[in-house]
Order: sequence, then C-alpha cells, then structure tokens
Amino acid sequence: MLLDFIKKPNDIKKIEPQNYDKLAKEIREFLIHSISETGGHLGSNLGVVELTMALHLALDLPKDKIVWDVGHQSYTHKLLTGRKDGFHNLRKYGGMSGFPKRCESECDSFDTGHSSTSISAGLGFVKARDIKGEDNCVVSVIGDGSLTGGMAYEALNNAGRIDSNFIIILNDNNMSISENVGGMSKYLNNIRTADNYRNTKDGIYSSLLKRKHGKEIVDIIRKAKSSVKQLFVPGMLFEHMGITYLGPVDGHDIGGLVTVINEAKRCKSAVLIHVVTQKGKGFEPAEKHPARFHGAEPFDIETGVPKKLKPKANYTDVFSTVMIKLARRNPDVVAITAAMPDGTGLKRFRNLYPDRFFDVGIAEQHAVTFAAGLAAGGLKPIVAIYSSFLQRAYDQVLHDVCIQNLPVVFAIDRAGLVGSDGETHQGIFDLSFLSSIPNMQIMAPKNKWELSDMMKFAVAFNGPIAVRYPRGEAYDGLEEFRSPVEYGKSEMIYEEQDIALLAVGSMVKTAEEVRNALKENGYSCTLVNARFVKPIDEENILSLCKNHKLLVTMEENVASGGYGEKVRTFVDERELSAEVLTIAIPDEYVEHGNVDILKKEVGIDAKTITEKVRKIYAEL
Amino acid sequence: MLLDFIKKPNDIKKIEPQNYDKLAKEIREFLIHSISETGGHLGSNLGVVELTMALHLALDLPKDKIVWDVGHQSYTHKLLTGRKDGFHNLRKYGGMSGFPKRCESECDSFDTGHSSTSISAGLGFVKARDIKGEDNCVVSVIGDGSLTGGMAYEALNNAGRIDSNFIIILNDNNMSISENVGGMSKYLNNIRTADNYRNTKDGIYSSLLKRKHGKEIVDIIRKAKSSVKQLFVPGMLFEHMGITYLGPVDGHDIGGLVTVINEAKRCKSAVLIHVVTQKGKGFEPAEKHPARFHGAEPFDIETGVPKKLKPKANYTDVFSTVMIKLARRNPDVVAITAAMPDGTGLKRFRNLYPDRFFDVGIAEQHAVTFAAGLAAGGLKPIVAIYSSFLQRAYDQVLHDVCIQNLPVVFAIDRAGLVGSDGETHQGIFDLSFLSSIPNMQIMAPKNKWELSDMMKFAVAFNGPIAVRYPRGEAYDGLEEFRSPVEYGKSEMIYEEQDIALLAVGSMVKTAEEVRNALKENGYSCTLVNARFVKPIDEENILSLCKNHKLLVTMEENVASGGYGEKVRTFVDERELSAEVLTIAIPDEYVEHGNVDILKKEVGIDAKTITEKVRKIYAEL
Repeated sequence: MLLDFIKKPNDIKKIEPQNYDKLAKEIREFLIHSISETGGHLGSNLGVVELTMALHLALDLPKDKIVWDVGHQSYTHKLLTGRKDGFHNLRKYGGMSGFPKRCESECDSFDTGHSSTSISAGLGFVKARDIKGEDNCVVSVIGDGSLTGGMAYEALNNAGRIDSNFIIILNDNNMSISENVGGMSKYLNNIRTADNYRNTKDGIYSSLLKRKHGKEIVDIIRKAKSSVKQLFVPGMLFEHMGITYLGPVDGHDIGGLVTVINEAKRCKSAVLIHVVTQKGKGFEPAEKHPARFHGAEPFDIETGVPKKLKPKANYTDVFSTVMIKLARRNPDVVAITAAMPDGTGLKRFRNLYPDRFFDVGIAEQHAVTFAAGLAAGGLKPIVAIYSSFLQRAYDQVLHDVCIQNLPVVFAIDRAGLVGSDGETHQGIFDLSFLSSIPNMQIMAPKNKWELSDMMKFAVAFNGPIAVRYPRGEAYDGLEEFRSPVEYGKSEMIYEEQDIALLAVGSMVKTAEEVRNALKENGYSCTLVNARFVKPIDEENILSLCKNHKLLVTMEENVASGGYGEKVRTFVDERELSAEVLTIAIPDEYVEHGNVDILKKEVGIDAKTITEKVRKIYAEL
Repeated sequence: MLLDFIKKPNDIKKIEPQNYDKLAKEIREFLIHSISETGGHLGSNLGVVELTMALHLALDLPKDKIVWDVGHQSYTHKLLTGRKDGFHNLRKYGGMSGFPKRCESECDSFDTGHSSTSISAGLGFVKARDIKGEDNCVVSVIGDGSLTGGMAYEALNNAGRIDSNFIIILNDNNMSISENVGGMSKYLNNIRTADNYRNTKDGIYSSLLKRKHGKEIVDIIRKAKSSVKQLFVPGMLFEHMGITYLGPVDGHDIGGLVTVINEAKRCKSAVLIHVVTQKGKGFEPAEKHPARFHGAEPFDIETGVPKKLKPKANYTDVFSTVMIKLARRNPDVVAITAAMPDGTGLKRFRNLYPDRFFDVGIAEQHAVTFAAGLAAGGLKPIVAIYSSFLQRAYDQVLHDVCIQNLPVVFAIDRAGLVGSDGETHQGIFDLSFLSSIPNMQIMAPKNKWELSDMMKFAVAFNGPIAVRYPRGEAYDGLEEFRSPVEYGKSEMIYEEQDIALLAVGSMVKTAEEVRNALKENGYSCTLVNARFVKPIDEENILSLCKNHKLLVTMEENVASGGYGEKVRTFVDERELSAEVLTIAIPDEYVEHGNVDILKKEVGIDAKTITEKVRKIYAEL
C-alpha cells in the first residue's frame, strides 16, 4: 500500500506522480472501510481526496496554513499528516476528533466546526504573516454551502481589498448537507454547467467568426477595455468584489489542481479557485444519497445500509410528525430551516407544504430575522435549528424577535450533549443565552409525547418561545404523565418529601434513575418535571420548600445562567429554607465521545448525581 | 408652511408636484433646527428626505410596508406620518424614539436598530403577503454600509430566488458612519463614478458605430443572448444573484425616484433600486463632517459646533490613548473595528499605525473570527466594539476564539445603559452572554485610570479577555486607589464591616454614593471594586462573609447570568452566612432616555439602592 509510506507531513511528495491516482484510490478505500466501522463524515471527505492531495503536494506544511471550513472534510488531511492510526478511534471519547484540532497536529492551523468561518480566519493568518514579515501561503477551503453563510461574505468583502497573496478554494459540490440554495448557488451552477460561461468566450468568438465581418468584431472585443473582457471571465461576481477568479477546475484531477494552486500562489491578491467536486465520489451509495452519508452511522460497505437499524423514534422524528399536524390545522404555520431539511426533520413538511417551507441556506441570522418578518406579517413561523447553530443568531433573537415580542417558535434540536461531533457542536449554552433575553420563554420536554404537546402549546402562544430537545432516541417512558402544558407550570411526577429533584427535559429520565437509586436506599424523593426553564414555576418551588430540605436542579446545560441558578436565586431571595444543589455542565468545553461517557465525565449521569445528593443530604 | 398640512399618512399626496422641492426644503430646515436642539441622527436623515417623500408618494401606507434598515434614517418618515410634534421630545425618556417603532405608528412595520436586518425582515413580509394572498408592496431600505453586514447578503441570496415582487432600495451614500470599506463598496463606487458602467452601453455602442461595420456589430450584440447583454447592466453583481437591478438613480430627484419605484412595483421578482444620495445633504457642516453629524449632540446651526463643549474625557478617549501606548510598546498589537473607527476611538491608532488597523465594515462576525486568525497567527488583536453589537458575534467568540483559548482582547464600549438610542442599543447583556462561555475572562474598570491598567493587563494576558466600560464621561474619582490589576482579584476600596458593596465597573461610583448615604445614617459599610466578573474573587468573598451580614452586588447588566448570580451561587453553595442582595437590571428591555432617569427607572440609582439595602439590612 502506498498509504503505508505516508507517516508524516510532506511524505506524499515522495510518491511518484504516476501513482497519485493509485494513492487516491487507496485513500478512498481506507476512508470507506474505516468510516463503515466507526461512522463519521463520509460524503464530504470522499469529495476532497484529490483536492487535499493536491494541496499537500503544492504546499509546505506546517509552514503553510490550511483552514478547513466546517472541518468535517479534513480526513484525507489527517491521513496525509500521519494520523492514519487515529481512525479506528475516530470521534470516540479520547480518540481522534472528526474536525481539525490545533492540539492534534501542527498541520491543523485553526479549529473549525461551524460553517463559513474559514475566510475570516484565513485572512487573519494572512495579515499576521504580512505584519510579522513571514513568508507562507494561506489557503482557506470553503464549500459552496458554507458560502451561503453571511460571515463568509463579510470576509470576501474584506479579502477583496488586500494586496498580498491569499488563496480561497471554493469546493463546489452543489450541496450543503442537502441541496444548496439561493442566488449564489444558481450563479455557481451556471458556471458549472459550462455552456453559459465556460465556453462562452470560445462560443461567442466562433459564432461571431462565422458572421460577416466576424474577424473584425472579435478583434475589437479583444482590444476592448477590461470591463468588456470580464464578459468572458466566469467568476465575474468574485472579480467584481476584487477577488481574482480561477476556474472552474476539475476537483478530481490532481495534476490540474496542483498547477492551478501554483498559479494562484503567484497572485498578489486574494484569489479564488473554483474547484468542482462530487460529494461521495467513488462510493455509489454516497454519491446517490449525499444527505444520508453526510454524517454516517456505521454501515455495510456492499449495500450502504446502516449496520444498526434505528431502534426507536428520535426527537427529530417526533418533531417531524407534529409539524405535519400543526400545519394541517393551522394555515399560518410555516417552517424555516438553515440548510437542515433532513437533520431537523422538516423534509416531510417540505414535501407536503412546499409553499410554507423555507430552507434559507446556512444562514441562521437571516433565518431568525426572516421569521420575525413572517411573524410581523401575520404568520406563525417555526424555526427548526440545532442548539449550537442558534448561537449564530443570538442577536437576531434578542434584537429582531424579542424586542418586538413577536410570536416566533424556536424548535431547538440537538440541545444538550451531542456526542461525537464534540466541542463545537455541543448544545449546552442555549438555556443560558436565551434566559438572558427579555420576553423569551423556554420549555424542554421530558419524553416524546411532551415534545408534541409543547409544540402545540408553542404554536398557540403569542410571543417568542423555545422548545429544546436532545439529539437521539426519544424517551418513551413516563407515558402515564401527560397533564396539559400550562404556561410557566412544572409537572409533578412523584410527590414525596425531603428531597425534590427538579429536572429539565432530557434530565427527567436521569432524575427517575436517581430517584430509584435513592428510594432503594430509603430516601423519600419527589420528582418534578420542570417543563419551563423560563419562567420558572415559582409557586411550585415555594410549595416544595415547605416539606423538602434539598432541591436538586438538573439540566443538560452549563451552570452559568441556566435553570439551576434561577431556582437558587429564587429560593435564596425569598429566604426559603431548602438547600439547592445545581447539577449542570461545568464551565468548560466538552469534547467528543459517546454521550453516556461524556455525561459521566461532566458529572451529570445518574450515578454521580445520586452520590452527590446523598453526600449533600447527609450534611444537612 | 407646506409641512403643516401633513398631519397623517398619505397627506403628502395632496401636495402639488411643483411644490415637492419646497416641501423637501422645509423638511430639511425642520430637521436641522429640531436636531440642533435635541440632538439625534442628522446626516443620514438629511440624505433621505427626497427618497422618503418619493416612497410615501409611490406607496400606500400603512398597507404597504417599509422596513428601514438600522432605522435612524426614519425621521422624514416620522414627519410624513404625522409625528412632527414628537420631535421636541425626540429620544427623550417617554418621548419619541429615534428609530421605527411598531408601538408608535401603524406605518412603522418593523423595529430596527442594528444593521443589515431589513432585507431578511422584508422578505418575511413578502412571504407572509403571498401565503395570506394579500396585496401590498414591501420595500426594504438599506444603506451601502449595512450591505457590508453578512446577514444582508444571506437575505439577498434568498431574495434572488423569489418570484413575486420585493423592492430593495440601496441607499448608497458611500458611507457607513465613517467611510465604507471593502470589495462591495469598491464595486458600488465603480457604478457611481459613472464612466465605467453607467455610460458603458452608450459608450461602447457609439465607439463601435464609428468603426467599420459598426452597425452590424451593435446589431449582433443587441441580438446576443442575455449573458452578453448583462455586460451593459451596471448592477450585474446583483443580477448574477437573481435580483433585478435598476439604477443608479439620483436620490435627490423626487420625480425620478417615484418613476423608478413605480417601475419596480411591476417586477415579479426581487428588484434592487440603486439610489445615490449624499449624507448630510443641504447642511454644509454635515456634508463635510459626516461622522460627527451621524449621531449629533445639540449644535449651533450657524457653525455646526456642539453647544455643550465636552467637559471631561470619556472612556472612549481613555481607550484611544492607551491603545497608542500599547501599540508603541508591542509591535504585535493590532486593532479591529466593525465600521466604528470614530465611535470606538481607534482613529488615532489608525493614523499612527495604519498597517495594524483593520476596519472590516459592519461585520462583527468577521471581525471576531478574523481576530481569532490574527491571534492564531501570533499577533495580539484588540477588537474594539460596542456591547450591543458584540451580540452579533456571540458564536464567533464562543466557537472561534474561546474553544481554542486564543488571546483576543475585547474592548467593549457602550456597556451598560446607553441612553437615547434605546432598547436596541443598551449594552446590558454582555456580562451574561460572555459569562456562559468557557475560557473567557471579563473585567470592568471603576474609573479612567483603571481602564488603562486593565487594557495593559489584557494585552499581557494569554487567553480571551474582555474589558467592558460604559458610554460617556470617564469617572475620575477614586484616583488614589490604583493597586495593580491582578488576575481574578477584586480591589478593596473601603474596608469596614456589616454591609459590603461589591460593585462592577460603572457601579463603583454609584456604590460610593450608596456608601456615603449609608454612612450618614450610621451604617458600617465596605466597598469592593469587583474588577473581575469572571472569574469572581472567591477568596475575597469568603473573607467578606466573615464579618459582613449583607453582600450587595451591583452591576449595569441584566440579573440573569450576571455577576450577582455568580456571587450568590458561590455564597450559597459554600453555605456562607451572609445574605446576598443583587442589584441589576430586571428582565426587560430598557427604552430610550437620559441615563440617570433610566437608572432610576430600573432601580440601579444610588437612592433606590440605598433604600433597598436599608430595608433588607433591617430585616436581617
């Protein structure tokens, strides 16, 4: 295997050019095989095998810097920098990250995870290089999907005025996770589909030459001023912004890519290389079902079918179903996603109500303010979004939705620990950043039925309201507890005395386990499903304090600004006698790994909580 | 006066066309006179007098919707919708807002304040109209400065694919508050400067016609496919994104504007009208000094000179000075602003160190991630930004700076209540949203010397760190207290017992007043300058709890997730005996008005606090 000879950065340069295609093939086979075992991002990585090889051939790492936008396409880069052995533990606790990590390799110049950051960061490296008088090459690799995010444009707008080298590689596969959207996508598509642009120049020339006086006309155009010449440059949109455009280039032709990268290195400005790639390239199931193989579970290589069939419905499925019901009942219900029709479960909604569905691209800021506009226009918008991506729209929630108290529903998926994606994707801040916003209400369901009930409540509510629920399997226990959702009211599950567990959403299940363990040891223990994180149910807390010595709040969120602090503040300000124990995620980023392991690691698993409760209670 | 006849929406339509210019003149005189008394946004409003008149003539308000981006340019709109009498109380407490407010008029369709939101919100109105089968016209008015904000591009990208009418008016004055920047700005400038584009078509045609076979060539081009035709459309960049471009149009020609708006209304797609205006038009001092007359204090009409000379240095001046020192001492220090070189005080830095200064446009997201790149590249970036605008970059702080623990300094100006700009601009959330972010440290200075000291400390610190300071006059009291800033340590100002006031930044001055009032009444009272909001000084709190019954935390920030909650949690978790009283801003948006009035209104003035402390202390 050629791949075995690659032990460290730049080893690829020892491979003979005639063997590049063989190496590419080996890398693809390795990735398919390895990810079929561990799961991980497949499609995006298969798409950039040759591009990554070309970058490693044309650049000098780690002196030169590559910033991988989003970062989940960096597997070949990891292979070529000597991390092959890390793949068996990919995205596992303590194992190799699925994203670039400065702590993992000198060749990972910048950590990424969220979309559209690479041009900004790359520009930072460029300016640092120039100010420090260093000599290296900076390359940002960004997908066409990431180009729908506004901050990429903010960065392009700034890149357009620099006078030193900066290479932006547009990895254009015509996809976000699902189909890409918007005017820019259409524009790129026009370039790709060749006819309109790629051959425009030759086409026009040859058609002109056939005419009377054709040669004279062509001569005139050839001599014309540059603005006329730009007619024949396909990436005029970028050129207009001051960025040199090269391309489109076949993203699976290593020689061609190396040539164009070397050409780009000579440019004294920002230069965009438009590389056309195919997501999932070389693995038929991934070519055919790009969304399914975006972030894949372990699968059978022959068929592409996931090894483990999904056992139970997850929260996304539940959300998906209730959205159809809500839309059927209420013609004002509309749904918005930022490039996640599959991930958020809105695909069925889209198919049934295409006119009431909006995929705005990877554009969370626009998604939220657009929803505010829809609400101001009299509709009932539901923004379905992952917790960590809603961070992008904090100001829009605060400034555009909540100041005007507009009835926008936020359906926040992947809230809490998400597992193998790690630091960048953990949804552990939303309770805090939303709590500080006036006029906002926040709910979290304990099980799958409650998610439905809360969505119905949210749609009927006249103001900004969020429902947050975790990634993965929907809890289907406690089905006998289904009292109507009432504004600001928690739900009493088991009423006893001494110790009261007040659990938020996903933590109700954990609280049940804690309660069982405590009961086994003879404790009397109340279990409350908080339901509302904002406002908290003050009346219930007052009442609990009468016959409970210890209130234990439990949330899958950082402690600072979360549910526990609200309860503690209330209890302390009212000078109630109960002690409060806050179970929450400590003030640190949580790495990747199995969610159960992570919960133990941060101390929000049933066992750790039970021990803590027993210890504290004993001291009272 | 013609203006006196305009009492309500659409009254302008009764004015004879030959009197339009007279009315425009009256409006300008009214605005200049009125703002010279009250202060307010002048330049932007003088620039859009004719544009606003044309919109009111061509549209049917309130059925049709105008969304004013940023919103500070809506004064003529307020005049034309019957709010002339509100101007004497403009931006005063209880008086008329300086921004569009749905609560103020049916003709204000959407509240704005921050930049670049109008196209997103407008698109929401368009889709709501279409889904509800209504018939109205939606117009978003956005400046070329706001077009540097990424979310405007996210919205354009979505506007490019709609198939019903949506009018975007690009109010192009070649300015943000200061000069506009970036590739897009250059592009618009090319259009404006006519030669390159405006007359390209006629120019090329006529030059071709002079040649041999010229007529045939022109005919061929005329008959050519649309991509060739676009050569002659100046706004090709927008057309490429699927948006019809009309313009450029003289923004001070009412008749021309009405014609083009009516033309745009017939379009079955998004259409952008490129209107060229002059900021400050008709008032020479404002034409000459656009930044100074952006948000003006009351001024003398003859000279344009502010009536009240600035009595003392404000915090921005102090920051401005220390930045020069820091830059001189450390060649790695670089400064970044998002379109606020004047407002943040970085103008002097820019003049002295132009290569180390970056104005990135109204692009807070890019600003922060760009800073992360600069830091990863080995520099020491200082992002100077207003508190409420940093909200835009919450995810970038969390995801790009803090996960990698990069040494970026955030100099957060306008933190706390800002006064006359109101809800959208109050900087009262930063302590909360920054506190929830791991790896972040937060400081606030008590007076002007401490701001300098903290900036020096921050630049020497190896990690993400924020210094937040308020708008306006820098406190120059307590100059005798200037112990070195130490990591995580608060500063003891007056050490007594019983009651301890722990004040954050601007509240130290207030705490002094509270202490004096309490002392007059015989209380013993300690005053601590918190200095660090994150981490809090646990050691000091432990020590205070030994001989103080009451700890009073004081901060100019919302309570949720702020300093007080951190102190309370610590005291409560350690089961310390002291009671904690949190003085903070309640969970509500704070309207516009004089800061002293607002402080009373939200209960963080010395008198209210003193009374509260006495009451609580009496109950202990």
